[in-house]
Amino acid sequence: MRFPFHVSALDPGSRARRGALDTPHGRIETPVFMAVGTRASVTGLTPAELHEVGAEVVLGNTYHLMLRPGPDLFRRVGGIHRFMGWNGPMLTDSGGYQIFSLSADRVISERGARFRSYTNQQFHMLSPEASIAMQEAIGADIMMVLDVCVDARSDEATTRAAMQRTHRWALRSLAARTGTPQALFAIMQGGIFPGLRRESAAFLTDHPFDGFAIGGLAVGDTRAEREDITHMAADLLPADRPRYLMGVGTPPDLLHAILAGVDMFDCILPTSLAWQGTAFTSTGRVKLMRASTRDDDRPLDAACACSTCKLYTRAYLHHLFRCGEPLGPRLVSLHNLHHYHALMAEARAAIAAGRFATYARDKLEAIDRYEHSDRRIGATA
Amino acid sequence: MRFPFHVSALDPGSRARRGALDTPHGRIETPVFMAVGTRASVTGLTPAELHEVGAEVVLGNTYHLMLRPGPDLFRRVGGIHRFMGWNGPMLTDSGGYQIFSLSADRVISERGARFRSYTNQQFHMLSPEASIAMQEAIGADIMMVLDVCVDARSDEATTRAAMQRTHRWALRSLAARTGTPQALFAIMQGGIFPGLRRESAAFLTDHPFDGFAIGGLAVGDTRAEREDITHMAADLLPADRPRYLMGVGTPPDLLHAILAGVDMFDCILPTSLAWQGTAFTSTGRVKLMRASTRDDDRPLDAACACSTCKLYTRAYLHHLFRCGEPLGPRLVSLHNLHHYHALMAEARAAIAAGRFATYARDKLEAIDRYEHSDRRIGATA
Repeated sequence: MRFPFHVSALDPGSRARRGALDTPHGRIETPVFMAVGTRASVTGLTPAELHEVGAEVVLGNTYHLMLRPGPDLFRRVGGIHRFMGWNGPMLTDSGGYQIFSLSADRVISERGARFRSYTNQQFHMLSPEASIAMQEAIGADIMMVLDVCVDARSDEATTRAAMQRTHRWALRSLAARTGTPQALFAIMQGGIFPGLRRESAAFLTDHPFDGFAIGGLAVGDTRAEREDITHMAADLLPADRPRYLMGVGTPPDLLHAILAGVDMFDCILPTSLAWQGTAFTSTGRVKLMRASTRDDDRPLDAACACSTCKLYTRAYLHHLFRCGEPLGPRLVSLHNLHHYHALMAEARAAIAAGRFATYARDKLEAIDRYEHSDRRIGATA
Repeated sequence: MRFPFHVSALDPGSRARRGALDTPHGRIETPVFMAVGTRASVTGLTPAELHEVGAEVVLGNTYHLMLRPGPDLFRRVGGIHRFMGWNGPMLTDSGGYQIFSLSADRVISERGARFRSYTNQQFHMLSPEASIAMQEAIGADIMMVLDVCVDARSDEATTRAAMQRTHRWALRSLAARTGTPQALFAIMQGGIFPGLRRESAAFLTDHPFDGFAIGGLAVGDTRAEREDITHMAADLLPADRPRYLMGVGTPPDLLHAILAGVDMFDCILPTSLAWQGTAFTSTGRVKLMRASTRDDDRPLDAACACSTCKLYTRAYLHHLFRCGEPLGPRLVSLHNLHHYHALMAEARAAIAAGRFATYARDKLEAIDRYEHSDRRIGATA
């Protein structure tokens, strides 16, 4: 393993675990939610603000960063940390999900994905080797293998073929590394088929990856399927490596996955909903475009310690969103990320105290009570 | 006078003066540039950041704030300072300029301007009395009279009629006050006609206004006309009241006006250009969408002390603008406002030291040397 991962506490009432991963840019306390900074920026926030709201790890995306600003820039300036001014741990996704979701104009072969750039209309080849080379140039602490993602409604044969290619690409990714001090995580595939998930875990855990991600969820699956697969998948992964559930999800999704033994998460939800004017609070979601917040002089969340809740009322945030003022999304992004990071900090404390199962049950009940629309939004996350 | 205005130094080589205006929310050191926060927000920045970049006064706009969030909200929360969280001095423009520039669907009569709201399509009446009532609800430290603005290319009869109505409205504004601790400034009109400017100054300075603005510039006039009128107009205004040149301008515009004895300025240029990716620097403007900044690892301005220049390279800012990341405009807005406020701080120090004429000449030469496109942009400010 490139970086030591220590599990310091196991919850007696669930599979939840409290751990820490030591990277060249500092310790990641797990369970952790990672803020999404696709293009070397987290939607309008500065690195100082990310620290302030409790962010531990920032994500970059290989596909987007390969197109702009491109590898030469990262090689010249010495990596993404210096480029964007974030000195904490970082992780780069490989681009596998973007090949699946973004490129109308692409062909995937055994060699890799050939696609047309949205920046200059030229063709690029994203192969496992090219993804590793790009990720080494970017210089995040944790790299991901290039995987082949398919829609969760695909049939078993299609899902199996994608999984098997993902396995071959994972080995090519391992072989492509040049010895930089970066960890490499594999990505389990297999869709909603338990047999394929078992096969994928058995194959990948036979190789010296530094961590394992559960991929291929939140791509057309139902919430029940996602929870079932997460529980079985986490259980198939080795206890001494971090487990990362990719692209998921709402606070209830995270609590369920922590109960299953997952350590790491990322999702655009807290920032993308912030840009639409929706805030997560301890008493349910608040939609700031709605007239009900127009004359509401309370903070977004009286129980929240973030600077947005300390300084501004819902009425002011409503005004900013109604006027299209850019300060609105910024203040709500801050709050939403703080909300997610505070939830993770609570979860870590509850696991360390051996009471996570109770904590999670109470929290899930409270969220359900306040928020009945959760299921719908969670499914499109 | 509602607030004491003290002139502490006169420049021996020009009409420039160093002063201070004491408001209920603190002292304004003049000459001062005021940041434009039309809708109770300065383009993506927080009050803490405005303090950090040296902002002394923030402007709000009566026309926009009357439509959204409306007077009742300000009455309920106790004014704009509490609403937006800015505890320093504020000034509200009356809405006269917006009646002139924004409303296609409006009729101006002696009573006031009847116009259709862009928020709900209903008709509103903005009269001198309505503007004062709204400005008292907003609660800024300095209010402006409602004026009648005309295009600088209007003939003398049209310009005179607008000026005379502005005078009548100024007296109605004075009479409409209810005794709140807010200053009221009159606005001189008269276009580019020296005779009308003299007439306007003579009329308005006969009445107990707390300060005098020079209006009706930067509305179709040339830079030479603007400078000539500013010089003659400032000279017509009383020495013991602040002089405010509205809506102007570029750094050279400001230096010329300070030479003429102007104390206060506002302009959207530093923030609106920031949103287009243009930064003011000590070595000329930098356009961050241009390819020339792509591989430029220098800060925007090596001579600048702002946080953007301390933390980020031009290459990173270029990347943010190319990607449309909202952090870009935010970081450049911070920098541009810092640039303007630092220029005013330098000007104040130079006046206090009795060397402003020399300072301004050297500075104007340096700006000319670096920046030949200034004239064009200044004219559209």
